[in-house]
Amino acid sequence: MEYYSNQIRLLVEQLASLPGIGGKTAQRLAFHIIDMPKERVEKLAETILKAKQTIRYCSQCLTLTDQELCPICSNPARDQKTIMVVENPRDMSAYEKTGKYEGVYHVLHGAISPMLGIGPSDIRLKELVHRLEKEVDEVIIATNSSLEGETTAMYISKLIKPTGIKVSRIASGVPVGGDLEYIDEVTLLRALEGRVEL
Amino acid sequence: MEYYSNQIRLLVEQLASLPGIGGKTAQRLAFHIIDMPKERVEKLAETILKAKQTIRYCSQCLTLTDQELCPICSNPARDQKTIMVVENPRDMSAYEKTGKYEGVYHVLHGAISPMLGIGPSDIRLKELVHRLEKEVDEVIIATNSSLEGETTAMYISKLIKPTGIKVSRIASGVPVGGDLEYIDEVTLLRALEGRVEL
Repeated sequence: MEYYSNQIRLLVEQLASLPGIGGKTAQRLAFHIIDMPKERVEKLAETILKAKQTIRYCSQCLTLTDQELCPICSNPARDQKTIMVVENPRDMSAYEKTGKYEGVYHVLHGAISPMLGIGPSDIRLKELVHRLEKEVDEVIIATNSSLEGETTAMYISKLIKPTGIKVSRIASGVPVGGDLEYIDEVTLLRALEGRVEL
Repeated sequence: MEYYSNQIRLLVEQLASLPGIGGKTAQRLAFHIIDMPKERVEKLAETILKAKQTIRYCSQCLTLTDQELCPICSNPARDQKTIMVVENPRDMSAYEKTGKYEGVYHVLHGAISPMLGIGPSDIRLKELVHRLEKEVDEVIIATNSSLEGETTAMYISKLIKPTGIKVSRIASGVPVGGDLEYIDEVTLLRALEGRVEL
């Protein structure tokens, strides 16, 4: 990139270091940013800084938020006695988009992975157990359907069962609109095991 | 996105307004930025601001640069008498990547498009004509092979021919590695017309 001047090269490098942004996209973004009106560029830089400065973990569910409590935990209309356990804030927002879940969440910020050396104490499990000291009706485990997600689900279920609180796991199966022909065997078997009577 | 707190929502919106960044990518980027070390976030914001503040047009070829003259125009090893005309700085960097072109450039910052109401005076043609007052051996027109690019090439060639300076156009044809079967007819005809004797 020696044909670019220094400041352009720096910007392209910074952008290319973000996940999912390749060299070409970084270049296109850099030129776009340089061409944007000065006010919009300042706004962009300021928003980035401010997000980093103000965002912290919700003191209850540990999702990212700029308040003491996130908008969901502080919403009186939400059922505080149903806790859905997810791996990260994006999984939480995926369920929020359905618009149908009325409980609250608990964000683990990871999943147990013996392969990567991530154990139960490396994710936010202690905080979950602490939350169960208050009255809780049900814990819904919505970790991913991966090896790590399943391991984590198993671990949490064993941890909670002795307390007598109801523990459930979201269903695995064929995605809606999915064509059986293209679905892997493990999913097909799960869908069979999890069949419901009509 | 009302389930995100304000600062996260703002950051996602700002990122999603960039070209080629959809909602999901913006979310992933936002969470990544929030998770980055403070110093790296500050560096990113600073680089964005600094790029906007310091970058301007090269006084000779009009590419974007942070100096009076861009690295190519100020390189004494480059042939200042050969000017390649391109639509934008990215096209220039595409040719620089070949590592084989030794002349300089002229960046039009657009192409003539009657459809979009962009005329010859809306792109940096006046500056090109001005450069031809110095000694120039050849002008190579490397605008895109689109309707607008071809229109612009035609216009420039008519503009320069009376001066006696050699004007050329980069070749159109089948891309290297391209399978004839999947190439459109116009390109195939161009490749035939532009055939070279072996």
